[in-house]
Amino acid sequence: MADSIYEDYPPALNPAQKEFLVRTVKDWATQNGLVVRPAPTFVSKEADPHGVLATNAPVTLFPSPFPRTCFEEAKVLQTVYNKLYAAITCSEEWIGKIMEDLIDVDDFISNLWKVHLAVQKEGYSQTLSLGLFRSDYMAHSPANSTDPQLKQVEFNTISSSFGGLSSQVTSLHSELLESPPGSPIAYPRHPLLKPKGVPENTAVETLSAGLATAHTAYGPSKSQPQLPTCILFLVQEGERNIFDQLALSRQLEKVHKIPVFRLLSSEILDHTLISSSNPSRPLIYSSPHAETTHFEVTTVYLRCFYAPTDYKSERDWEARTHLERSAAIKCPTVLNQLSGSKIVQQVLATTTGPDHLQAFLADTDPSLISRLRETFAPQYDLSVSGKGRELALNPSTASNHVLKPQREGGGNNIYKTAIPDFLKSIPENEWKRWILMELIHPPAAAKNVALRSDGEVLGGGVIGELGVYGTILWDQNGGKILHNEQGGWLMRTKAEGVNEGGVATGFSSLDSVLLF
Amino acid sequence: MADSIYEDYPPALNPAQKEFLVRTVKDWATQNGLVVRPAPTFVSKEADPHGVLATNAPVTLFPSPFPRTCFEEAKVLQTVYNKLYAAITCSEEWIGKIMEDLIDVDDFISNLWKVHLAVQKEGYSQTLSLGLFRSDYMAHSPANSTDPQLKQVEFNTISSSFGGLSSQVTSLHSELLESPPGSPIAYPRHPLLKPKGVPENTAVETLSAGLATAHTAYGPSKSQPQLPTCILFLVQEGERNIFDQLALSRQLEKVHKIPVFRLLSSEILDHTLISSSNPSRPLIYSSPHAETTHFEVTTVYLRCFYAPTDYKSERDWEARTHLERSAAIKCPTVLNQLSGSKIVQQVLATTTGPDHLQAFLADTDPSLISRLRETFAPQYDLSVSGKGRELALNPSTASNHVLKPQREGGGNNIYKTAIPDFLKSIPENEWKRWILMELIHPPAAAKNVALRSDGEVLGGGVIGELGVYGTILWDQNGGKILHNEQGGWLMRTKAEGVNEGGVATGFSSLDSVLLF
Repeated sequence: MADSIYEDYPPALNPAQKEFLVRTVKDWATQNGLVVRPAPTFVSKEADPHGVLATNAPVTLFPSPFPRTCFEEAKVLQTVYNKLYAAITCSEEWIGKIMEDLIDVDDFISNLWKVHLAVQKEGYSQTLSLGLFRSDYMAHSPANSTDPQLKQVEFNTISSSFGGLSSQVTSLHSELLESPPGSPIAYPRHPLLKPKGVPENTAVETLSAGLATAHTAYGPSKSQPQLPTCILFLVQEGERNIFDQLALSRQLEKVHKIPVFRLLSSEILDHTLISSSNPSRPLIYSSPHAETTHFEVTTVYLRCFYAPTDYKSERDWEARTHLERSAAIKCPTVLNQLSGSKIVQQVLATTTGPDHLQAFLADTDPSLISRLRETFAPQYDLSVSGKGRELALNPSTASNHVLKPQREGGGNNIYKTAIPDFLKSIPENEWKRWILMELIHPPAAAKNVALRSDGEVLGGGVIGELGVYGTILWDQNGGKILHNEQGGWLMRTKAEGVNEGGVATGFSSLDSVLLF
Repeated sequence: MADSIYEDYPPALNPAQKEFLVRTVKDWATQNGLVVRPAPTFVSKEADPHGVLATNAPVTLFPSPFPRTCFEEAKVLQTVYNKLYAAITCSEEWIGKIMEDLIDVDDFISNLWKVHLAVQKEGYSQTLSLGLFRSDYMAHSPANSTDPQLKQVEFNTISSSFGGLSSQVTSLHSELLESPPGSPIAYPRHPLLKPKGVPENTAVETLSAGLATAHTAYGPSKSQPQLPTCILFLVQEGERNIFDQLALSRQLEKVHKIPVFRLLSSEILDHTLISSSNPSRPLIYSSPHAETTHFEVTTVYLRCFYAPTDYKSERDWEARTHLERSAAIKCPTVLNQLSGSKIVQQVLATTTGPDHLQAFLADTDPSLISRLRETFAPQYDLSVSGKGRELALNPSTASNHVLKPQREGGGNNIYKTAIPDFLKSIPENEWKRWILMELIHPPAAAKNVALRSDGEVLGGGVIGELGVYGTILWDQNGGKILHNEQGGWLMRTKAEGVNEGGVATGFSSLDSVLLF
């Protein structure tokens, strides 16, 4: 059923239609801040020494069909997922046990865990914790299946990005579906391409409201005399995706009237301090452009420090520890970041042994818990006695699996029949770094056309991933939840496409959904 | 008095303040569509073959002080100016007499006049005429004067630009004055730099409402069967200022729900037609991307055809005639365009002979007429018997004058003591191409800092020009006015600046005003 939807979508474009659509998308994106700074491979530092140039974010020309049942289910489950990951983050001992095995083999996990232990020893000065999460899914549509199923790819607990730009892509596609008003002809005729086909997307509102809630919950300044308060966005140097972040800070300043500053992760120790004489440990920020005005930071929002490459030296770990021990509400804390590791996802999905889901969600409607469990793709560790080893080493079962590094954001997956040989090629004591996951099969016939940031237009078969945003504020001390919301989503569409010269090149584009 | 305001403005920036302000302005501009396509000298066609790159429009870092009395006066007078130029446009015979002299010496004026005569012969099929005007002024502040006076530089009746971007500059400066909320520190402290210091700017709303009013006044489709209606923006190829225009079409589509299409002036004859069998002569547009859907054009908005260089061949004149004879409401008509010639401004300002102002504004409050007359800088033709010749040829009087080509958008002004020798160097029968105008003295101490589109930051002495927008819809047949509004403004700031390397280079930036 579902496949027939994808077969003849999107409609073919003749040259004039393509020219019009590409030009319209290109100009719309730039007019509305759906932009990125260009990659150095496109515009070199010498060509633009002051870094003023921008280009459209990579976007699909068409919204992508997505099963309505899967979309609605993902939204319904988001607040349950929020609760689950807050509960996991509160279960320090449980996380500690899972991390134990990894600390030997993974420096990054080990260093994060050390930050937590150091601050725990001194005592945390802030018990509130903020999560801006994104749960990523595919519509699992195996060849012989009747209905598509929602299957989780990963759960992000740090730097969940693209909410700002994703809202804009939704507006772009929605406007194209209705353009011009009264006589829509921007797209060629197609039964799926109808006005109001793309659901609303409140990602900017939801994520900003999450940050604003934390800001308010922080309460009055803890300094003597009291200081004005602010939210601090901690960011990477040379961030090309800056306009995604600025969409949130604009909303915070314009709608919530909250001061927001941006600070490079490398400058945290230069421009923030924690007075040793104040036991509450407020985090004080002073901007280099107005050094005499001090702000007290209520909330630190990390758009950095999520990958090992973000920690270039001991000083970066020092900065992370500095933030962690401050009174600012962290989005996220180190513990919350660790809860997003792939290994946690795998432990939750394990069907043998204790029922962790049930334990973490004790007060939740059991039917919701089982619906959430349904979103897990079967996944296994590679322990000596486990089923994972058996499935991974047998080529016939391996062919329906993927081997993933247990760490979040790892990449470097090993697919299908390559798994047995790969495992045999590495020492057995390193197998615990890997997780075996049953393959998710997105709709095989899905296609789209994308406008890349360098202006190339590529079409072809695609794989779409839906992310749903959620925000939660809880008290790490006892787990009381002060705020729990879902809202906004992201469709990302990836492909090996073919450009006009017939050369295969890839694209990864922002997209929106047409529910069917 | 006024000069002391300019003396210590803007405040000096230390390197950290400058870095912050430049970065903030740069990012804000790109996030909010305050952008232009880069000049080919900055980004070559080879570097960006698909034309996806954009950069910030040139903007000042600070709003510029401007006398409140002059600003308010310009706003009060705008609807009177609208009425004046509508009345002039209705006075075909009067325009014809003025043009008579120029037709011999000026091909451009001559060709425009021929378009009018040809259509007049056939009979105009549309009597409604739309003006989207901008009246440009300086705050005249001669050294020994007490109060600054509002003096008109020119009056634009075609392609009055920058309304879209100007609104955004107002938002930028207004936000900087209040940023961050509650504790504004984006600018260094200065008594003039206070929140709410920049007046509101409704240029986008006003100009779009003008176009929407014409669209509605056009009435139902004149085609059989009736067609959906639209507004057509006629534009130049390779327009770098496209986002200024898109701000208006976005407003028309989103707020007024009116279809808008963009068409290159070179493609008018390919994609529009007037059926010979329909005596009402509706202008029918079909877009190449949806050729089977036809729209009837209610209003043609010209962002082209204003300069001689816009007419590359006979075919362009044919296209202009084609538009003029159609039933679409023209913004502007050829007659309305001609009414904006510098020579009309000069004739109006002439204090000897018939009182044209009084005649054109017969039903207007006489005190408003005299206030409008006050905005004229003394200006003269160079006729044999006139005062102009005397003032121009005497070096001591010439030194307080500028010699301007009579045609709108001419440039190439001759200044002060260079005037006598220049006149003597050209044949006397060409003197009628020129107008002598008393110099307007903007505040001598005015300074600002600008971020250019290539990222260079330049500071120095500046000259500011205030433009006020007005829209008017009238019936050319009898002069009845159906709509007459003012709203929105533009501050443009020009300078010979000095860059960091000490090299003198120019800038012309969009700006806003701080009223004092």
